[in-house]
Amino acid sequence: MKSTYNLIAGTSVERLAALSDGVFAVALTLLVLDIHAPASAAIHSEQSLWLAIVSLGPHLLVYAMTFMTLGIFWVGQQTQLNHLARTDRSLTWIHLSFLFSVSIMPFSTTLLASFTTYRIALLTYWLNILALGATLFFSWICATGSAHVKPDVPPHVSAAIKRRIFIAQGLYAFGAALCFIDTYWSIGFIVAVQLGYAVAPRLPRLHRREVPPSR
Amino acid sequence: MKSTYNLIAGTSVERLAALSDGVFAVALTLLVLDIHAPASAAIHSEQSLWLAIVSLGPHLLVYAMTFMTLGIFWVGQQTQLNHLARTDRSLTWIHLSFLFSVSIMPFSTTLLASFTTYRIALLTYWLNILALGATLFFSWICATGSAHVKPDVPPHVSAAIKRRIFIAQGLYAFGAALCFIDTYWSIGFIVAVQLGYAVAPRLPRLHRREVPPSR
Amino acid sequence: MKSTYNLIAGTSVERLAALSDGVFAVALTLLVLDIHAPASAAIHSEQSLWLAIVSLGPHLLVYAMTFMTLGIFWVGQQTQLNHLARTDRSLTWIHLSFLFSVSIMPFSTTLLASFTTYRIALLTYWLNILALGATLFFSWICATGSAHVKPDVPPHVSAAIKRRIFIAQGLYAFGAALCFIDTYWSIGFIVAVQLGYAVAPRLPRLHRREVPPSR
Amino acid sequence: MKSTYNLIAGTSVERLAALSDGVFAVALTLLVLDIHAPASAAIHSEQSLWLAIVSLGPHLLVYAMTFMTLGIFWVGQQTQLNHLARTDRSLTWIHLSFLFSVSIMPFSTTLLASFTTYRIALLTYWLNILALGATLFFSWICATGSAHVKPDVPPHVSAAIKRRIFIAQGLYAFGAALCFIDTYWSIGFIVAVQLGYAVAPRLPRLHRREVPPSR
Repeated sequence: MKSTYNLIAGTSVERLAALSDGVFAVALTLLVLDIHAPASAAIHSEQSLWLAIVSLGPHLLVYAMTFMTLGIFWVGQQTQLNHLARTDRSLTWIHLSFLFSVSIMPFSTTLLASFTTYRIALLTYWLNILALGATLFFSWICATGSAHVKPDVPPHVSAAIKRRIFIAQGLYAFGAALCFIDTYWSIGFIVAVQLGYAVAPRLPRLHRREVPPSR
Repeated sequence: MKSTYNLIAGTSVERLAALSDGVFAVALTLLVLDIHAPASAAIHSEQSLWLAIVSLGPHLLVYAMTFMTLGIFWVGQQTQLNHLARTDRSLTWIHLSFLFSVSIMPFSTTLLASFTTYRIALLTYWLNILALGATLFFSWICATGSAHVKPDVPPHVSAAIKRRIFIAQGLYAFGAALCFIDTYWSIGFIVAVQLGYAVAPRLPRLHRREVPPSR
Repeated sequence: MKSTYNLIAGTSVERLAALSDGVFAVALTLLVLDIHAPASAAIHSEQSLWLAIVSLGPHLLVYAMTFMTLGIFWVGQQTQLNHLARTDRSLTWIHLSFLFSVSIMPFSTTLLASFTTYRIALLTYWLNILALGATLFFSWICATGSAHVKPDVPPHVSAAIKRRIFIAQGLYAFGAALCFIDTYWSIGFIVAVQLGYAVAPRLPRLHRREVPPSR
Repeated sequence: MKSTYNLIAGTSVERLAALSDGVFAVALTLLVLDIHAPASAAIHSEQSLWLAIVSLGPHLLVYAMTFMTLGIFWVGQQTQLNHLARTDRSLTWIHLSFLFSVSIMPFSTTLLASFTTYRIALLTYWLNILALGATLFFSWICATGSAHVKPDVPPHVSAAIKRRIFIAQGLYAFGAALCFIDTYWSIGFIVAVQLGYAVAPRLPRLHRREVPPSR
């Protein structure tokens, strides 16, 4: 009897995509709430305002890093959802776990921005990235196992999706391990990896035209 | 004269779904704003930061519980909307009442996280869950009564939707009643119920393939 | 030259609807951020927590009133957009003005909730409602004037949309004027009007089935 | 190997539009969180409340200016996306950079509202507008270079999109430069430019009907 409900619940990829876009949009925009404008009482000249803004630099760097992280995982999730013909209740719940990790990200970011030199803060941040990657990897395993993937998706696409998550998580783990030398090395390495993922694809753009749109 | 407006107002299921996804996305993400990073002034070592993070544990547990609650009701509402051919003004308003209960959830959650051992806090939280269930149950009654349900929805689906809400609310009420022994029993029981709803459907996945997508 | 851009800009009703749903969703959910859970330090018994929650009553009432206001105007805007075949840049900007009034609503609500007995607070709140109604009325005038309304919309629908806004604003203005007797009379009257709009349409539901869906 | 993932990732214009609408909706609505209602303790008469609200005037003006800025860029981005047949990973990342600038806007606004007479605050605000324009300009260059624009878009549309951004940024830069005379001249000039963009298109509405909808 109970399975009737489970068969009909949570089958819409569109709604899942819409909720995901909403959660990402709020998480991306909430981050900036932690960057407070300097207090008026403490500012008496252009120069002191300039110094106050400059002192927000580290905060802004961590914020930009998180924006890139969320952007990377938004693109990653979108890529999966674009290839799904439908979803089901269990796959929906895996994506809800993924969104839970997304919603925690502003907290991890504030923690790291406030305690940039603390290994615990950096490892918490990394655990959050790991949770994002693990849930996204697991969701693809389940999507392929449940035959919800569109029939015209070639096998090498599936392999590429899994490989991409695996390699990225390996690099993030290496970056996190660098915190035992210095947390700034970790942050620098992770930012470099993310810039690589965000910027690199633009280079081989010339070869892309011959591929038909996947959607 | 007045009824002309009522006949044309609020007829779009897509817009209702979009507003709902937005409200859920904001509510899910706002929750984390209550988990404050520890104050820098109080932290002087890795160990004290670790203890400060660990002390956030209960907050995080209540937060995760609410995330699951909202996830369950998001799936529940989506399941209903997927089966609607259209809506009307009165059905739209029932769903707006449902969204009102959703928007109150961050408040109930903060209250419970701040006063975990207080029965009043737990009963407030439960009343919020009850309001979610009652409005969702009522919306399905009205949808079937107004003939807005898609014609190809078989009767046992309708029965399954109603039964699911009924059983879940019974379990929640039992969990809430446990607070007269101890509020932690209530929280533990409710979390267990929710994990059951979120995780259990994955087990019988093998039987699902033969069912055609409902949308 | 300049007009080329104006001819191609802002033509998508879908995107306007999506932005509107987002703004409404955030405004509806942000309201609750002003209802603060009581401070832990001040609470030492179930009874004091109960009294603290009860004392939030007026806040919650004003919050619920605003939720209804926003719900009414969301339904109103949706009704207009459902009848549009397309939009243009100027009509889009009128709707952006409407969304500006929506985004101010949480401020007006907090003001009224904090200063319930002050006429200035109530009149500010009413001015906000007036701005919502005026922009929505103006947008329909422009939509019909620019021939963006779908060709199959009968004239009496257009008249019903305009009359509805006119009558509602008349009632709101009367309610606001009552503040010169007592602001609670105003709040009570406005809540009654809104309940009328939200609940009343359910009564003549039986006659509705014969009308084909407008979308 | 790596390029397989890049070929399939980030190809959905719809999801990009949905994320953008979400980020804009949150940014537009978050702005108002900085306009705090006056503290109850300081208000003892209608007149003192009136003066407290009036003193929020400059804040509200800067807020309205930012709302217009975001509205202009939302229309501008929408216009581009409406003309795209698809996107790819690199174009998606340019739009994510654009959304990053959008998400910073509430911070720049608060800074300017708190330090209205400071040139540094005004130049920070202008840099934010410059970043919005630069990323939007760059995204159109890449979209046309990657042949993602719909085939039926005539060349003069592409020229109009680029010219529009160019002229607007020239006017903004001139307005920003006025801050070396007085920051209020800058604010006044920028508001005037924005009102021009928002209101002007309504004037030649009569000529618009003969143009078929672009979507």
